[in-house]
Amino acid sequence: MHTPKPYAILIFHVLFCSIAAAEEGMFPMSELGKLDLAAKGIELTAEQLFSTAGETSLVDGVCRVNGCTGSFVSPLGLIITNHHCAYGAIQKASSATQDYLTNGFVAANQAAEIPAPDYTVRVTEDYRDVSQQVLEVVDDSMSFLERTQALEKRRKELEAAAEVEHPGLRAEVAEMFTGKTYVLFLYTYLKDIRLVFAPPQSIGNFGGEEDNWMWPRHTGDFSFMRAYVAPDGSSATFNSANVPYQPKRFVQVEPQGVAEHDAVFLLGYPGRTARHKTASFLKYEQDVRLPLVVDLYNWEIDLLTNAGENDREVEIKHASRMRSLANVEKRSRGQLKGLHRTDILAQRTARELELQQFIMSDPQRAERYGEVLSKLDAVYDELSAETPRELHLSHLRSACQSLSFAHFIIDAAHQRQLPDLEREEPYMDRNYEQSVQRLMVSLSDFDANSDARVLAGILQRLATLDNSINGLASILQKPDEIEATTAAWIAGTQVQQPELVQQLLQKTPTELEKTSDPMLQLALTLYPTYLEMRETDKRRDGELSQLYGSLIDIKQRFLSTNFVPDANGTLRMTIGRVAAYSPEDAVIKTPITSLSGVIDKTTGVEPFITPQIVQDKYRAKDFGPFYNQQIDDVPVAILYDTDTTGGNSGSPIFNAHGRLVGVNFDRCFEATINDFAWNQSYSRSIGVDIRYVLWITGPVYGANHLLDEMGCDVPK
Amino acid sequence: MHTPKPYAILIFHVLFCSIAAAEEGMFPMSELGKLDLAAKGIELTAEQLFSTAGETSLVDGVCRVNGCTGSFVSPLGLIITNHHCAYGAIQKASSATQDYLTNGFVAANQAAEIPAPDYTVRVTEDYRDVSQQVLEVVDDSMSFLERTQALEKRRKELEAAAEVEHPGLRAEVAEMFTGKTYVLFLYTYLKDIRLVFAPPQSIGNFGGEEDNWMWPRHTGDFSFMRAYVAPDGSSATFNSANVPYQPKRFVQVEPQGVAEHDAVFLLGYPGRTARHKTASFLKYEQDVRLPLVVDLYNWEIDLLTNAGENDREVEIKHASRMRSLANVEKRSRGQLKGLHRTDILAQRTARELELQQFIMSDPQRAERYGEVLSKLDAVYDELSAETPRELHLSHLRSACQSLSFAHFIIDAAHQRQLPDLEREEPYMDRNYEQSVQRLMVSLSDFDANSDARVLAGILQRLATLDNSINGLASILQKPDEIEATTAAWIAGTQVQQPELVQQLLQKTPTELEKTSDPMLQLALTLYPTYLEMRETDKRRDGELSQLYGSLIDIKQRFLSTNFVPDANGTLRMTIGRVAAYSPEDAVIKTPITSLSGVIDKTTGVEPFITPQIVQDKYRAKDFGPFYNQQIDDVPVAILYDTDTTGGNSGSPIFNAHGRLVGVNFDRCFEATINDFAWNQSYSRSIGVDIRYVLWITGPVYGANHLLDEMGCDVPK
Repeated sequence: MHTPKPYAILIFHVLFCSIAAAEEGMFPMSELGKLDLAAKGIELTAEQLFSTAGETSLVDGVCRVNGCTGSFVSPLGLIITNHHCAYGAIQKASSATQDYLTNGFVAANQAAEIPAPDYTVRVTEDYRDVSQQVLEVVDDSMSFLERTQALEKRRKELEAAAEVEHPGLRAEVAEMFTGKTYVLFLYTYLKDIRLVFAPPQSIGNFGGEEDNWMWPRHTGDFSFMRAYVAPDGSSATFNSANVPYQPKRFVQVEPQGVAEHDAVFLLGYPGRTARHKTASFLKYEQDVRLPLVVDLYNWEIDLLTNAGENDREVEIKHASRMRSLANVEKRSRGQLKGLHRTDILAQRTARELELQQFIMSDPQRAERYGEVLSKLDAVYDELSAETPRELHLSHLRSACQSLSFAHFIIDAAHQRQLPDLEREEPYMDRNYEQSVQRLMVSLSDFDANSDARVLAGILQRLATLDNSINGLASILQKPDEIEATTAAWIAGTQVQQPELVQQLLQKTPTELEKTSDPMLQLALTLYPTYLEMRETDKRRDGELSQLYGSLIDIKQRFLSTNFVPDANGTLRMTIGRVAAYSPEDAVIKTPITSLSGVIDKTTGVEPFITPQIVQDKYRAKDFGPFYNQQIDDVPVAILYDTDTTGGNSGSPIFNAHGRLVGVNFDRCFEATINDFAWNQSYSRSIGVDIRYVLWITGPVYGANHLLDEMGCDVPK
Repeated sequence: MHTPKPYAILIFHVLFCSIAAAEEGMFPMSELGKLDLAAKGIELTAEQLFSTAGETSLVDGVCRVNGCTGSFVSPLGLIITNHHCAYGAIQKASSATQDYLTNGFVAANQAAEIPAPDYTVRVTEDYRDVSQQVLEVVDDSMSFLERTQALEKRRKELEAAAEVEHPGLRAEVAEMFTGKTYVLFLYTYLKDIRLVFAPPQSIGNFGGEEDNWMWPRHTGDFSFMRAYVAPDGSSATFNSANVPYQPKRFVQVEPQGVAEHDAVFLLGYPGRTARHKTASFLKYEQDVRLPLVVDLYNWEIDLLTNAGENDREVEIKHASRMRSLANVEKRSRGQLKGLHRTDILAQRTARELELQQFIMSDPQRAERYGEVLSKLDAVYDELSAETPRELHLSHLRSACQSLSFAHFIIDAAHQRQLPDLEREEPYMDRNYEQSVQRLMVSLSDFDANSDARVLAGILQRLATLDNSINGLASILQKPDEIEATTAAWIAGTQVQQPELVQQLLQKTPTELEKTSDPMLQLALTLYPTYLEMRETDKRRDGELSQLYGSLIDIKQRFLSTNFVPDANGTLRMTIGRVAAYSPEDAVIKTPITSLSGVIDKTTGVEPFITPQIVQDKYRAKDFGPFYNQQIDDVPVAILYDTDTTGGNSGSPIFNAHGRLVGVNFDRCFEATINDFAWNQSYSRSIGVDIRYVLWITGPVYGANHLLDEMGCDVPK
């Protein structure tokens, strides 16, 4: 039961109309100059955000942390990101006896920080448009496969050239509009990342999967990491002699936090959106891919839950993977629900009808663009037919860990024989070391029992979809024998042993063919099938690239406007307000939660456990400077109407002055369909309030030295 | 997805503090004169509500409809109550081919109205305090059983005398404070009740069990019935020559409805509350009775669901019972959750500790009251030990229909041999005809297959609790044989055949012992056990009556105040406001729902189906005079902070001027613990908005003649 507040403070003014409406848009840095920032409540200029003159600006304080976003919050490379982004590092550092997931982790000083060898931190240094240089290598005579291969090769060439030009930096060409615009980004990659502070997961993941994608939220989803470099300042992997990285700029935290209606903005690396895709894509997602993901992931979640029961060691091994599966599963469900309940698909269909009429109303346009939409539909028809089989095959290779190890070994042996620029990304010289590093770290998560069950299960599912797969037909056609056969394979494999893997990585394809390891043999059997899938993907990508390039062309002409490109993992800015919303008739969700809400939800049963020290400090009203009068305790999480997607996890939430007031970590359930369409009425993102971050870190868990380091001038 | 409203109207001012707080209290008519009605926003005087001078007043427009409340809304005995209150009548009138539950029912004129033979309508005519006359028959020398028997006898004597004094009226003595105050009420009982209008259950029960006890709500839970009397105006059972009853006063509907913050009040017949019961009672409810009810009812719900699958005829037979089971099950879950999450139990324990200290601080008080609380605790200890067995035994008799029929026949044969005043209520001359009528109507719900499964199932459960029950030991001790044995009994019984039942009701106990019907034989075997339970109940009631009488005495002295008695099915008034609430941190639920919310919830799958005609009129914005600008369509349900419980179903919701603005039908989930404690922050009741009632009845289903009859001066 919600503890009622005294009347005096129960005055809610939810005035949706009195403030400027937020708008769709994950703006690339190139667009900032075109925005009226002041009208949106932002008190910084575009130059202060991202300097086109090469000056230090706010974006220099923002970095990518693996697939997430982070912010430098001290001159000594201290990074704040989400607990769920640091989760892999916390998990790898944990064991049943030293369980940092459960108990949290506080490094008393820099020496006590724990290396996270599979983490990298990326800092954006510069960018430039290279669309023309990319697109000049393709012409209409090419097959779609040739087109993709040509584009890939040119992008790699441009990257290699840029890296020669800028030693020490890494160059990456990003596709902004599919098949149309390309931007070359220059990045610094930091490779010695260490864990500094993590709250117990009962705080960092409070509410667990039950609350995930939900508002109101009460999760302290933050952690601190630190980037290190070689003593000469160059990027280097872990070495105890390394020194903290000094960012060009760090972000100032704002211990006062924010209030409802305040303007906020985020910088970050949103992953993928599909706002410019066709109605046929949405239909493919709705009818085929999303239901399949929900079904397959639920099956795997059940299997892994079962395998980890009564064995904390195994449970910890599965922890990261389980969260990721559950996260995607619930998001997919939200997206399905959203697609069924909104008219996004109908709207897009209607817009395409209008566009098609526009195209056909002029013979020249009709000649050039008349078939673009129908050809795109045909690609999604093909995908609808092939996805069940292909998704199971690709999931087989990722979910069965020993097969994933074996496949990497074989693929690497083939790919490393090719010239560098012709290889797939993970095997190129500039990536290979990191790829191998990730493989070696993931070996420790192997659990034979779970792996055997996953392998058998996916093969059994696959048998019902296609039992004639090259080399697998004999086993797929006798589903009753799958379990015994795969159990024997897993029992016999040694591809999870680090020394052996290192040896195998030295071998040629021919040498590998002679090994008798059953999982290597299975990977060899499946290799032609996976190569074929890779080619199919490239062929489809080539076709989609060409068609979407044309589609954007004609849409821009039809609407006489420019669009903001879909998210693609590059640096973006989004602007909004701390704002309530109404997810259903007669329900208003207000945008700031409180510690009393944490206590209300606490049942003592996972995922609603609250550490005793937090409960004690709550009862003692020991809130220090983080007490907020309006909600009568410590603010915990905030809600705002910016435009975000996956990859924005860990994004700094800035106030109008560019000071850090929170860390973005999720969206509300209705906003899972953000990926397909943004809407002021339901698109809301969720962040942990900086006041909760600071209260938990300092007063509660005693890491006051971190508050000092961040320059939080608050009484202890 | 909630359809967003235009900005202009999305202005929510939820000002909890600007209005007078509502307060606990289901006030008996005797208390109205003490209330400051004007301060609560009510523009009527106490005399206008209930005239102590015998004038016509508002309460004359309110009646009891079986266990619910209703209002007369025309001079011709037209009654509005809940769809779920008329449900039994709709169900009995329905069959798989003429399915009024599914399709709704509109009587084109009075001749087409359908009799509901198991319905009675009760009108309160007068009352007087008879505490002294009741209590003078008991003294401390009596055993508890003797005490109860003496009280029962005296109440019946007073009732009989009053009925002689007031021919045509019915007298009933109600216990106001247990063992302490008694009031004799004079009622008119109307016995010819007919169904006039029922919306399809997709409207009347929209949201079904999923939404039951929930806000926001979108249920059109209303129906119209009509009371008839003999041509001379006297109460009579159905006869086609009967004429509509003319109430002394009817209630005027207010087609304008209400707005947030408006004062409202309810009149009605709330059933039972336990605000004056001890902490040990709450603990017994929390630890024993409620968990048992949840478990047992869920089991029966599953069984009946299963039995009705793919057979609409059987499903209709079970419909009323299922709703009742599901309703109590969910309320019990709400109460359990509330007890676990609030500090009601702790507060009451603390208050009793203070009371005990007060008692012990004075030797005379200690002597007289020192053991009251501990003795009450002992009664609940006994109940905690005995309830599992007793609840299963009593549920056996009610859930197994053939056993229930057989038990009634046997019990009646014994009871009807006693002098009238010594019989149990159902067998007294003044009740017996109606009791038999109810039995005869319920025979048609018998389904042999379901009944066999219920009987076997409860016996199997009972076997694990007490396998030595008199006469049942041989079967309970061989649980494997229960199913076959009970199947044979049900196959062999004929106690569901109306003609046979009528014959059996003429037989003496001795004659009944000679019948070979297996269910009659089972009922005979169990009869001594049930008689023993009846005596145990009376003994406990006697003890509780005496102890609670003392407890109220000493509490009133301790607190120097008067209390409002617990609800007991007598006429009460409760006052509040249309008001939002905050059930949890960062969530506000506003108090008026809209038709667009109905459309949002509509999935086309039970229980979220909306008739096409409603959807069409919504799309066409064909709202007539029931359009409300603030919510931009038709208001559907309203929320207010009055103090209600079961029995208030169907209660009129009046505005400040005593005009009808809605019909009460439920509480929000948090308010299920109203029965134990009322609280301004979470106690909210739910009613259907009169504007939805009128829109559905007239514009949508064409019963404009009813709108005319109610004097709704609205354009069609």
